[in-house]
Amino acid sequence: MSGPRYLEDLQVGETLLTAEVQMTEEEILGFARRYDPQPMHVDPEAAARGPFGGIIASGWHTGAVVMRMVVDAKPLGGMPLLGLGADGIEWPQPVRPGDTIQVEIEILEIKPSRSRPDFGVVKMRSTARNQRGEVVFVVNPNCWVARRPT
Amino acid sequence: MSGPRYLEDLQVGETLLTAEVQMTEEEILGFARRYDPQPMHVDPEAAARGPFGGIIASGWHTGAVVMRMVVDAKPLGGMPLLGLGADGIEWPQPVRPGDTIQVEIEILEIKPSRSRPDFGVVKMRSTARNQRGEVVFVVNPNCWVARRPT
Repeated sequence: MSGPRYLEDLQVGETLLTAEVQMTEEEILGFARRYDPQPMHVDPEAAARGPFGGIIASGWHTGAVVMRMVVDAKPLGGMPLLGLGADGIEWPQPVRPGDTIQVEIEILEIKPSRSRPDFGVVKMRSTARNQRGEVVFVVNPNCWVARRPT
Repeated sequence: MSGPRYLEDLQVGETLLTAEVQMTEEEILGFARRYDPQPMHVDPEAAARGPFGGIIASGWHTGAVVMRMVVDAKPLGGMPLLGLGADGIEWPQPVRPGDTIQVEIEILEIKPSRSRPDFGVVKMRSTARNQRGEVVFVVNPNCWVARRPT
């Protein structure tokens, strides 16, 4: 979406679907070598013998890829997406090399900030599904969103 | 810690302090260009004019670095750290280039799994502090932990 979207422009229940992104083995291995070097993420032979039967993406890699997909989808137009935190994260199914994921962003709650009259806090939910429609990642972030300048 | 640590080896309340890691501007920019290309993370000049007065790390970058610090500290010995999800995440203070962070890992709860008799679910908390002792990141993951083979 283009142009800034302020707190007053958002509606509870609105949804936005991102583009699709394919996860490659090269990127899964590269991310995990740096940030999560466990056999299930970095060692194809050990992973093949393990409970998942092959390499799976680090959960933090999936989270980072989803962040990129959400940034590109611009749910706040050109305004920054700045997270205070998240109420919860789930990794219900593994993400494997070759999987294609797509994210649905939903606005759950919109509240003016008590401490900052020029901002509000918006609870969102990003749900990532793979090419079979299985949910692979859910995050419920709480984001600062600017109010429309008066 | 060396050697496997099974569910029966863990105690509620035990803590483990990781090594310290310094966040570099090069890595903050590199991670964010790929996963979170917003001006506050990738554009030093725009970030200097913004509310943080300079570049700050993507929250997902901080999360990934903390994952690496926890993997290296081996709270389960040689056993895999596999997250089902997390009850919450907080980014209460920004992480800036040059900051040194250290993570305290705490075991909050240990429960046998109802669905998998050979596993349990352990609630942990990882709290990352900077060189001034300010909390910059908190995550409360729920991890699968194997029971001791009988």
